[in-house]
Amino acid sequence: MIIVLKRGTAEEQVQEISERLSQEGFKIHLSQGVEKIIVGAVGDRSRLESLDLEALPWVEKVVPILAPYKLVSREFQKENTVIKVGEHEIGGNKIHVMAGPCSVESRSQIIETAHAVKAAGATFLRGGAFKPRTSPYAFQGLEEEGLKLLALAREETGLQVVTEVVDIRDVELVAHYADILQIGARNMQNFILLKEVAKTNKPVLLKRGPSATLEEWMMAAEYILDGGNNQVIFCERGIRTFENYTRNTLDLSMVPALHALSHLPVIVDPSHGTGRWNLVPAMAKAAVAAGADGLIIEVHPHPEKAMSDGKQSLTIPNFTTMMDELESLSTALGRPVKGAR
Amino acid sequence: MIIVLKRGTAEEQVQEISERLSQEGFKIHLSQGVEKIIVGAVGDRSRLESLDLEALPWVEKVVPILAPYKLVSREFQKENTVIKVGEHEIGGNKIHVMAGPCSVESRSQIIETAHAVKAAGATFLRGGAFKPRTSPYAFQGLEEEGLKLLALAREETGLQVVTEVVDIRDVELVAHYADILQIGARNMQNFILLKEVAKTNKPVLLKRGPSATLEEWMMAAEYILDGGNNQVIFCERGIRTFENYTRNTLDLSMVPALHALSHLPVIVDPSHGTGRWNLVPAMAKAAVAAGADGLIIEVHPHPEKAMSDGKQSLTIPNFTTMMDELESLSTALGRPVKGAR
Amino acid sequence: MIIVLKRGTAEEQVQEISERLSQEGFKIHLSQGVEKIIVGAVGDRSRLESLDLEALPWVEKVVPILAPYKLVSREFQKENTVIKVGEHEIGGNKIHVMAGPCSVESRSQIIETAHAVKAAGATFLRGGAFKPRTSPYAFQGLEEEGLKLLALAREETGLQVVTEVVDIRDVELVAHYADILQIGARNMQNFILLKEVAKTNKPVLLKRGPSATLEEWMMAAEYILDGGNNQVIFCERGIRTFENYTRNTLDLSMVPALHALSHLPVIVDPSHGTGRWNLVPAMAKAAVAAGADGLIIEVHPHPEKAMSDGKQSLTIPNFTTMMDELESLSTALGRPVKGAR
Amino acid sequence: MIIVLKRGTAEEQVQEISERLSQEGFKIHLSQGVEKIIVGAVGDRSRLESLDLEALPWVEKVVPILAPYKLVSREFQKENTVIKVGEHEIGGNKIHVMAGPCSVESRSQIIETAHAVKAAGATFLRGGAFKPRTSPYAFQGLEEEGLKLLALAREETGLQVVTEVVDIRDVELVAHYADILQIGARNMQNFILLKEVAKTNKPVLLKRGPSATLEEWMMAAEYILDGGNNQVIFCERGIRTFENYTRNTLDLSMVPALHALSHLPVIVDPSHGTGRWNLVPAMAKAAVAAGADGLIIEVHPHPEKAMSDGKQSLTIPNFTTMMDELESLSTALGRPVKGAR
Repeated sequence: MIIVLKRGTAEEQVQEISERLSQEGFKIHLSQGVEKIIVGAVGDRSRLESLDLEALPWVEKVVPILAPYKLVSREFQKENTVIKVGEHEIGGNKIHVMAGPCSVESRSQIIETAHAVKAAGATFLRGGAFKPRTSPYAFQGLEEEGLKLLALAREETGLQVVTEVVDIRDVELVAHYADILQIGARNMQNFILLKEVAKTNKPVLLKRGPSATLEEWMMAAEYILDGGNNQVIFCERGIRTFENYTRNTLDLSMVPALHALSHLPVIVDPSHGTGRWNLVPAMAKAAVAAGADGLIIEVHPHPEKAMSDGKQSLTIPNFTTMMDELESLSTALGRPVKGAR
Repeated sequence: MIIVLKRGTAEEQVQEISERLSQEGFKIHLSQGVEKIIVGAVGDRSRLESLDLEALPWVEKVVPILAPYKLVSREFQKENTVIKVGEHEIGGNKIHVMAGPCSVESRSQIIETAHAVKAAGATFLRGGAFKPRTSPYAFQGLEEEGLKLLALAREETGLQVVTEVVDIRDVELVAHYADILQIGARNMQNFILLKEVAKTNKPVLLKRGPSATLEEWMMAAEYILDGGNNQVIFCERGIRTFENYTRNTLDLSMVPALHALSHLPVIVDPSHGTGRWNLVPAMAKAAVAAGADGLIIEVHPHPEKAMSDGKQSLTIPNFTTMMDELESLSTALGRPVKGAR
Repeated sequence: MIIVLKRGTAEEQVQEISERLSQEGFKIHLSQGVEKIIVGAVGDRSRLESLDLEALPWVEKVVPILAPYKLVSREFQKENTVIKVGEHEIGGNKIHVMAGPCSVESRSQIIETAHAVKAAGATFLRGGAFKPRTSPYAFQGLEEEGLKLLALAREETGLQVVTEVVDIRDVELVAHYADILQIGARNMQNFILLKEVAKTNKPVLLKRGPSATLEEWMMAAEYILDGGNNQVIFCERGIRTFENYTRNTLDLSMVPALHALSHLPVIVDPSHGTGRWNLVPAMAKAAVAAGADGLIIEVHPHPEKAMSDGKQSLTIPNFTTMMDELESLSTALGRPVKGAR
Repeated sequence: MIIVLKRGTAEEQVQEISERLSQEGFKIHLSQGVEKIIVGAVGDRSRLESLDLEALPWVEKVVPILAPYKLVSREFQKENTVIKVGEHEIGGNKIHVMAGPCSVESRSQIIETAHAVKAAGATFLRGGAFKPRTSPYAFQGLEEEGLKLLALAREETGLQVVTEVVDIRDVELVAHYADILQIGARNMQNFILLKEVAKTNKPVLLKRGPSATLEEWMMAAEYILDGGNNQVIFCERGIRTFENYTRNTLDLSMVPALHALSHLPVIVDPSHGTGRWNLVPAMAKAAVAAGADGLIIEVHPHPEKAMSDGKQSLTIPNFTTMMDELESLSTALGRPVKGAR
């Protein structure tokens, strides 16, 4: 940590800071420039959180040198984390596609979709049973009935199931039916919920919050790892910017950035990331080319009748075409989308 | 609602949309231009949520005409909502100042602060007992012990207490001690928590999410009103933008905007809104001049020893000076900060 | 255009608006709902710019239906614009890579780089002779000397030259040496400059402004086409968002979006788009997979000695490796990076 | 400047950096931690611009300690710059209000407005003769004819004139007629134009770019001061964010921030800052309470007939009422809006 003191800081104030840092176990290096005094402090960053030196009037700024995250970092664990879900491995060589409707609406809808996406090469079925909706008047999901339909679809097709949990009281219930627990974007910093999913032994798909920085997102994952569950999958789904032609701005640079900074797998959601079905195939291909370990895609047999987010859902023929295009692309990259490994 | 159809949409597709809208109880007006076909649909917006017409390939865009909120709107209730908290009224003529530390840290800290802010003219004591922190390694609050200290400070000073609730399992506990329940910025769209505070009979201070639009914020309030609790106070606390000299960008235009669109009171948090104590007094005055019904300000007897957010906390002398300046300003506006009404 | 009138608008005010619109040649459709009155107006959008109906107090909002751009739109011209530069075609099947240093610094630097990027498969040489710099104290470019060195490099290697013009007084000079004129991001809405480059017969590479919406960007291109030059190449280079791990947020969704809305070619600049050389290869591949017609990449023989933007420059070996990876990817997509067509 | 080196950086690489810095005249302090090596370098920041150390693969990050601006900083000049325009002083005790239409449209329009805003207490007339418009098809201003009308209004009313210059070829012409040259938001980083206005002896009103950080804005002013003109007035006019209820997000925290960091005056434009006339009076008051040295406000005698931006223009009665409210507010602050000083 570097502490920059204002010009004209008195000797005794420099002393005071040095002593407080020493007490907290930091090693101190003083560097007196013409315009500024710079204090270098080497020690444990987690102790810094409670020091809040910027509250001192003669401190101009504090510059942290070490990253605030630990367990999620590539420095902590060099090799990639590979997460086993049934017979599948996320973070291994194969690219996994998770597909299905925004909301589970009916037995026929989910079963029809599951068979179709499986046939096209998907390995996971997505679908919401509990829906966090901006409006209290909007459809809020089929709840446990929806979970049962997902489980039924798994039985019929062999697809693994990923679905969102929004309420700590439902974590056990959702974990009973799901293979992967999804934390939605708006809950990325719902630390209470993060601590609860950390207690399960289920993999967690952690969506990026719409205004979360890379560092905040990694810290949210740190909560889950610190809570005892190290099966976290990052999911980039777009951030909120001034551009509103697209629903969000899909930030694909997070894929190589996370692969550099962390050992955890990264997947991409181009459906929420664009909000427009006609942009989804191009962005799915771009995500794979950027190195994503998987994709999560909204597919609906009749998007125009969907109870939520039909605008961004692919029809089954469009999804099937996209999977074929992905396959030739990913083969060139040496990471199959459809094949076993 | 206006539905714009693409050039060359077939007659039968226009027919299909018209029929679906009619079935949902909408009255239809067709308008055939040279370049576009425009369908006007008059009816209940809440039914639209499940129609998702933009999923239809021949629909270019859907433009909602009515606002999605109802109970929070000025159209629904013309006169201002005035919220009674003890002997105080929020949303009436008097401007209320809520002051205190970011976190409750100790008995002496909270009691000393409470006496000082009361003497300076504050009517509410703020202080966090449950702290949602970006890092799992940071101080997370004194929890129930903190709530007890807040209640003790209330007893000693007569200040009313506002404090944050983060976990649905604590709603009852916090409501037992607090006079106003605060929903933090990161929980603004934690709909599960919103539904739980809606069940209490306590006023709710609803902070704006760091990336929430005005409409989303009003919809979050709508959840609480729809749940049976109409004592909601909006709190602008800054939004996340590219500018990082300040911690957030305090969006004071929300004050007159909310007063135009809603009947609920609006207060401002310049401490989180700027993240720098030296900018707080200017922005507090600006908030009052913009028409805010109150302020919430971080004050700490020793900011340089604060366990969180000391950088943005005022010292007691600075707070006292600011209150004097506010008083002369607000007197000119006819809305006292210190007086009874 | 749809005009929504407030509840309770008087008959005569409705009349006034209708008459003004009729005078401007619009056909009017009135639609009286319970809560709102809706006026549909069919006619020439360009006349709307001067009406400014939202200034009328009884107008709630005005919703344009037609896009404001015309010449750049896919509706205006169905087939792709293919831009010929020497023997190359931009917007055709082949993907062009433009590579070179941020600034032209010396003869040896630019010649060495030109030979190297040519050998790796690039078809264009980029390099700045006039540099718009945030600081008046930073290196501002070699000016005409730089242009001459670019021309020399073209002579030696056969690469075509793309370079930025920042001053209207230099347009002729730059056009004399360059094969493509680049408009930098900060000048995207420098309409004076746009009008001047429109008068040349050189292709224009139009970078997206850091806070430009898709519509504003297309309108900037419209200025150039309207000025008589229809050889415009869009270049996505990232937008400014709250995320500052990367220098900008590269918005690849613009590639398929522009291809849907416009007939003009689209290329991508992952160097400025990320600001970090180690993210460039992944994002270059992603851009190609998203359908980009080309790439513009910063390459420097000794990035650590670059006079600007070395942080985001690839070394020659890194660039060469990236080109090989791109080639196998783009071959799978049927659009060669290295081949002739 | 602090340079953080990656773990495992070899001794010779540390040596290399130290030597390069020494050659550039920096004094070096090495600090070897367990996890990082930290190099402190004390010297002239302007030399750093050309070093670009982050391009070195073993450099993790470079943290500048000194601000990049010099002439505009409060450290360079302690006392406020007061700019004399005719008999007026901007940056002194009195708050100046600049008012008038977005565009000069006709003799009667500008003369009527000038008399009215003067009567209400304004000291400057604003009005655009050269309009940078997003669309090439929109009204682009009356040009020199508009300048003449502004001069005529000055003659008739005694108001001073502020108007925008967009083209370097017009700088002399505009300076001939105007008392203050305005640099519009989209030209804030048009460095060519900044250098030209720096050569005049006219005060420059420098609007903040829609996506400019505080530092970039100060650097733009630095261009003008470095060019020999130290009469710069900052004008906050809102930044582009995700919120689109307002046209921009007016960032009033820049007022106290600039007053802390710079000696130059700061004014606020609540018309462009909100884009909605009904929010203007509240934000004008907020700006004054935040410490602004002036305001620039759009006023039009018939906003519904304005050729640009009528939506955000006040009528004359609304402007007059606002001025009365501002006067009582500013009197309480000891800084008259209407009085002489």
